[in-house]
Amino acid sequence: MSEPAAAVTSTPSPISPASPARRMRPRLSDLGLSPGKLTRLKRLLYDHGPGGGTILVLPIDQGLEHGPIDFFDNPDALDPGYQYRLARDGRFSAIALHIGLAEKYYHEYAGDVPLILKLNGKTSIPPDAEAFSALTGTVEDAVRLGADAVGYTVYVGSPAQDRDFDQFHRVRADADRFGMPVIVWAYPRGESVGKKGGKESLYAVDYAARVALELGADIVKVNYPVHSEKDQQSPAPYNTLNLSPEAAFHKVVTSAGRSLVLVSGGEKVGDRELLAKVRASMDAGATGIIFGRNLWQRPRDQALAITRELHAMFREYAEPRG
Amino acid sequence: MSEPAAAVTSTPSPISPASPARRMRPRLSDLGLSPGKLTRLKRLLYDHGPGGGTILVLPIDQGLEHGPIDFFDNPDALDPGYQYRLARDGRFSAIALHIGLAEKYYHEYAGDVPLILKLNGKTSIPPDAEAFSALTGTVEDAVRLGADAVGYTVYVGSPAQDRDFDQFHRVRADADRFGMPVIVWAYPRGESVGKKGGKESLYAVDYAARVALELGADIVKVNYPVHSEKDQQSPAPYNTLNLSPEAAFHKVVTSAGRSLVLVSGGEKVGDRELLAKVRASMDAGATGIIFGRNLWQRPRDQALAITRELHAMFREYAEPRG
Amino acid sequence: MSEPAAAVTSTPSPISPASPARRMRPRLSDLGLSPGKLTRLKRLLYDHGPGGGTILVLPIDQGLEHGPIDFFDNPDALDPGYQYRLARDGRFSAIALHIGLAEKYYHEYAGDVPLILKLNGKTSIPPDAEAFSALTGTVEDAVRLGADAVGYTVYVGSPAQDRDFDQFHRVRADADRFGMPVIVWAYPRGESVGKKGGKESLYAVDYAARVALELGADIVKVNYPVHSEKDQQSPAPYNTLNLSPEAAFHKVVTSAGRSLVLVSGGEKVGDRELLAKVRASMDAGATGIIFGRNLWQRPRDQALAITRELHAMFREYAEPRG
Amino acid sequence: MSEPAAAVTSTPSPISPASPARRMRPRLSDLGLSPGKLTRLKRLLYDHGPGGGTILVLPIDQGLEHGPIDFFDNPDALDPGYQYRLARDGRFSAIALHIGLAEKYYHEYAGDVPLILKLNGKTSIPPDAEAFSALTGTVEDAVRLGADAVGYTVYVGSPAQDRDFDQFHRVRADADRFGMPVIVWAYPRGESVGKKGGKESLYAVDYAARVALELGADIVKVNYPVHSEKDQQSPAPYNTLNLSPEAAFHKVVTSAGRSLVLVSGGEKVGDRELLAKVRASMDAGATGIIFGRNLWQRPRDQALAITRELHAMFREYAEPRG
Amino acid sequence: MSEPAAAVTSTPSPISPASPARRMRPRLSDLGLSPGKLTRLKRLLYDHGPGGGTILVLPIDQGLEHGPIDFFDNPDALDPGYQYRLARDGRFSAIALHIGLAEKYYHEYAGDVPLILKLNGKTSIPPDAEAFSALTGTVEDAVRLGADAVGYTVYVGSPAQDRDFDQFHRVRADADRFGMPVIVWAYPRGESVGKKGGKESLYAVDYAARVALELGADIVKVNYPVHSEKDQQSPAPYNTLNLSPEAAFHKVVTSAGRSLVLVSGGEKVGDRELLAKVRASMDAGATGIIFGRNLWQRPRDQALAITRELHAMFREYAEPRG
Repeated sequence: MSEPAAAVTSTPSPISPASPARRMRPRLSDLGLSPGKLTRLKRLLYDHGPGGGTILVLPIDQGLEHGPIDFFDNPDALDPGYQYRLARDGRFSAIALHIGLAEKYYHEYAGDVPLILKLNGKTSIPPDAEAFSALTGTVEDAVRLGADAVGYTVYVGSPAQDRDFDQFHRVRADADRFGMPVIVWAYPRGESVGKKGGKESLYAVDYAARVALELGADIVKVNYPVHSEKDQQSPAPYNTLNLSPEAAFHKVVTSAGRSLVLVSGGEKVGDRELLAKVRASMDAGATGIIFGRNLWQRPRDQALAITRELHAMFREYAEPRG
Repeated sequence: MSEPAAAVTSTPSPISPASPARRMRPRLSDLGLSPGKLTRLKRLLYDHGPGGGTILVLPIDQGLEHGPIDFFDNPDALDPGYQYRLARDGRFSAIALHIGLAEKYYHEYAGDVPLILKLNGKTSIPPDAEAFSALTGTVEDAVRLGADAVGYTVYVGSPAQDRDFDQFHRVRADADRFGMPVIVWAYPRGESVGKKGGKESLYAVDYAARVALELGADIVKVNYPVHSEKDQQSPAPYNTLNLSPEAAFHKVVTSAGRSLVLVSGGEKVGDRELLAKVRASMDAGATGIIFGRNLWQRPRDQALAITRELHAMFREYAEPRG
Repeated sequence: MSEPAAAVTSTPSPISPASPARRMRPRLSDLGLSPGKLTRLKRLLYDHGPGGGTILVLPIDQGLEHGPIDFFDNPDALDPGYQYRLARDGRFSAIALHIGLAEKYYHEYAGDVPLILKLNGKTSIPPDAEAFSALTGTVEDAVRLGADAVGYTVYVGSPAQDRDFDQFHRVRADADRFGMPVIVWAYPRGESVGKKGGKESLYAVDYAARVALELGADIVKVNYPVHSEKDQQSPAPYNTLNLSPEAAFHKVVTSAGRSLVLVSGGEKVGDRELLAKVRASMDAGATGIIFGRNLWQRPRDQALAITRELHAMFREYAEPRG
Repeated sequence: MSEPAAAVTSTPSPISPASPARRMRPRLSDLGLSPGKLTRLKRLLYDHGPGGGTILVLPIDQGLEHGPIDFFDNPDALDPGYQYRLARDGRFSAIALHIGLAEKYYHEYAGDVPLILKLNGKTSIPPDAEAFSALTGTVEDAVRLGADAVGYTVYVGSPAQDRDFDQFHRVRADADRFGMPVIVWAYPRGESVGKKGGKESLYAVDYAARVALELGADIVKVNYPVHSEKDQQSPAPYNTLNLSPEAAFHKVVTSAGRSLVLVSGGEKVGDRELLAKVRASMDAGATGIIFGRNLWQRPRDQALAITRELHAMFREYAEPRG
Repeated sequence: MSEPAAAVTSTPSPISPASPARRMRPRLSDLGLSPGKLTRLKRLLYDHGPGGGTILVLPIDQGLEHGPIDFFDNPDALDPGYQYRLARDGRFSAIALHIGLAEKYYHEYAGDVPLILKLNGKTSIPPDAEAFSALTGTVEDAVRLGADAVGYTVYVGSPAQDRDFDQFHRVRADADRFGMPVIVWAYPRGESVGKKGGKESLYAVDYAARVALELGADIVKVNYPVHSEKDQQSPAPYNTLNLSPEAAFHKVVTSAGRSLVLVSGGEKVGDRELLAKVRASMDAGATGIIFGRNLWQRPRDQALAITRELHAMFREYAEPRG
């Protein structure tokens, strides 16, 4: 039933001496986590994936968010089994997806790759001006399926953010009740965001990270902020900050406080650029990455090859089990 | 892990002879409070903070309401631990914040500084024309965390006030059921407010205070009304009142009836101005203040210094345990 | 703590011979009331107030509906205790108000003056074009507080009437479940009403009275219809009716069927005009009146004086306990 | 309304050097407590009573458990106000009682003395052979009243222990949900206990302490075991242990593990005996005592005098705020 | 705080050639398990403990079931931390215990050793004639704590088995809803069992194993049947079967069908006897063992030594990840 044994079989992460950047990553023991959240997070951070307190997530919710359009680059990727096998064989910390891909495929990989159940989503068909992602599943679905975390997208700044907050606080409360970690996809969106520097501006990404912390995210997924001329439309002092990419991301991680930070991959880029971005993120205190298209839009061999490089890099950031 | 012992260690508030203004502060025993509300309010009014029936609250919800932008003045303040330590070491009556900052940080300060869980909020990204703050937590969250009160923002006059009232009455009913005091942030907002004198006009602030009383606030947080030419757009007789700032605030406190009044700090001002505003408020019958940026945008030493002055001033307004 | 004993101490209502108008007032025994509704209504109609099957209600929800603006004429009235004492000392059948004024003040008057808990409301700040009053309390709050009825405003004809009906049917169902009488403030509102004769037209008031009956009001509060040129915009045959004020109101009472009718006071008028309006209403089959500003905007002595006159008049309309 | 100011006004507990026995008391930070439980326990252990991590509880549930028979020695004690004032003026950590005494009296002392709501009880009229205490209140009652803990009696070994466990696990789950500490009165009872050494035997008390830990008690109230000839009927090796009273109690505290131990007072004894028992208990690792009859069966002056001695003794066992 | 690093550090289980007995162990993929149950069982069977589809559980519920009496042999074992560290350092598949030991201690080991939350229990004080174990926790508690299975004792044949079945079917339904594996402690008990060969007879153990299967156990814990003269009282043909111990146990495993079988350890026996019993059990198709007293009544060094032997033996029974 299964494919040949995992192609990524590096030995358990040895503990390297702490790099300077490493001290910014929050320690699990400081986070006030309930035993259930702690147990589940340790599975993601230590028992699976590169370990050592880092996390490497493979998302496959793009079929909902963007449509099958994303699978043209690598037609194999249209079959959700492709991503499941990539997550398993590449020893990812977890795979993140919606209820349908969980119910129809996860039984073949249950226990082999941890599951993050994404709980809300939308299509890209209507415009993003009033972006809002409705529920596609519940925390109880996640418990039932044996997931180790849930994912939820908050569109920070959208005109619909009131419905979003209201919807999220119920998810968060259920997650607290069940001891289920919550990962917030913190995405600036909406026309007001557009007028204040845009969704990739430091102003917007920084605000989104803090909102996730305030609302109760255990982990927050952010995009790497991009400096552009539009920053001049951001409120002061963001309009004149002019930080280096590394410094800007460092600021975002600081704003996230005790929410662990995952960096979003975004569109596919070259290997060198990808690895550089990951290293910069980890240096700035990120806990890990969540890369989809950058991995499964590559052919399997290339995807596994770069995954091996990511494992190797993450070992440099490993910490003792907390 | 903690900083040097509390810098504000003034002895328990002695009881001063009642000043004339003091007779306007409602007495707890007149308020028809259930035993649970009474017990919790006494903690805020007598057992913590300056005591003597006064209240000094440190809010840190600005990261959600305004974004990380508010932390540039004092970068230390970006870490929520900064405000927690300031609240503890400055012997505040309570710290007020959202669920995320409670769950991730409060365990380190539990029992050392009372908690007010803010239950709704929004970002400042979309415009305020239809302002509405959605739920971020519940009264049951507050009970679970050991909070002594909940906070809720009502945007009086907003086109969305119907959703707001509806949402609030459920919070208020839960609070009644659990004996949890409710603090209403009573903020005039929306385009109709703008056309009738604006959100700082006496008309608007006075109306907002009364609305909080009518809806069931145990404590109401109001802004100090500001006289301006826009008052001429307010309905009669507000358009011709021309009250002194003190008289205007006195009117607001009277409209709030048996809802205890907290004065909002707003943007950072100089020490002298700040203390004068507090004294005028207390003279007019306020029960206390809720100052955030005016405290934590100052460096710790300066923040503690002015906190000491506030403690000293509040002792002049102390009343015997009711 | 209380003021001198009640200034209105007329003996229990003697039973006068039935006036002609009296036969139009529905008899309680004909209304199919559940025992709980019957018990509570008898308290309002016979045990308190002028008795004899009539009802005299003092409302104090204007602080929410209009703001503190209504209290300038008589500054004493800004303190809700003023209205409570007026209701008690003037032997009103009940006082009608929102949850906040009930929770903070009613404990001082509990059992001395019956309580009608108003369950929805709004401010006057936004325009009335899409008028909708959101919930501020629940029938269960009313039960808990010992109220003898609940009040609910339906804005008949408003673009928001769908939400209104939906909200009301839940309140009505709760009231049925708990045996709690429901008083509907039946107010025509919205731009379509404006185009068809306006909110005071017979067309609109008559329609509103019937809507209250259809939706399940035990008592309906209506405004006295006002004949004007705008009636010509009403649908036929209202555009040509040309009824006397008494006949017009008689029509409204007839449309209300087995919903008992209360007449609304509206803005303050002179004594003579007020008493004439009441007599006309009672002659036309009203069960009583609900006058707020016309009473508490008067100084206490004048308010009690006119209340005595109302008691005397109501004795003429008394019926034997039904 | 209140009596002369507190007769026990010793200054806040200074921190003494740790005595050897002190190291046996579990530290709050080791107990895995939720923020709500931690907050509430700190009130009992540090903010009220002797403080320094110790606890001194005044129970008044004997009117239910034994009947008014217990109040003949000191007729003043028949009025529950007597115990409330004794708890307040003697600066007890808390008063423990049933819902009726809470609802009718606590409002006078709310916030002045912490409340432990006892949730189950029985009378002494039927025999104890199948002892079972039914619910008299709920955790939600405790939340509503502002209590800082709940109390529950488990009759370990009773033929009815199955109903007891079932009833308790629901109380425990509610307490977890609301962050409310649970104090278990762990009492061996029933005919099988009688056959195995009796309810005061080390076998029975030791077993009861462990059962409380296993079932989830945050604090366990135990009786001091009494060595007697009946011990020979206990299972081996209890039938031959022959421990000193201090060693026996030390064993019980060890069996309670991370449940904090309160020693029960039982019937009234002389001052010297009482103080010796307390010292032995604290030396063995108890966190405090819960003495009722031994305090309120004494006249007020004598009760306050011995309370002062208890405060003084507890200061020797004080630890820094945990 | 923790002891020296794990004493049992054998490398991940290599896959040995299947032994003949192995074919009797049900395959996970044949059991119709939901994804949640499958995920959680794989953690117990492959990710922790000896792996390879086997399971080695350390139970510590004897403090409730037998009292502290079981801890005299090895006083260190009175501290639940002893068992937790033994489970972690000895690389057990899981530790099984009640809610109190989970809430107070598990936070220190969360994620390091899987948790099986035992959901019902009783003391040994009353006689076993009507044995019934009442609930001490719920499946939702298990979810909240991050447990990977729940345990439940069914007293097969007890006069109270009707209440037991009723109680169990609710637990089983909750477990189905949450995807939580259920381990049934299937224990023959009660006076009727005594009359039909006794609780250790093949008749009784065999029946109990089948009952667990019928009621929905994912795993059943049974005692090794003991042949004795009392077997003659069993119904035919059990009264004449005369099977070898191995054959008898083989029969029990067969009766358990697709419920995986765990062998109970019972009272402490010598090393040789213990290992022989385990081998016989595994040869007969058991999936693993659940040994408490036989491990933690040994001093830590000896306990770890025999645990190493168990690991080595289990490797002989390892199967590829299913």
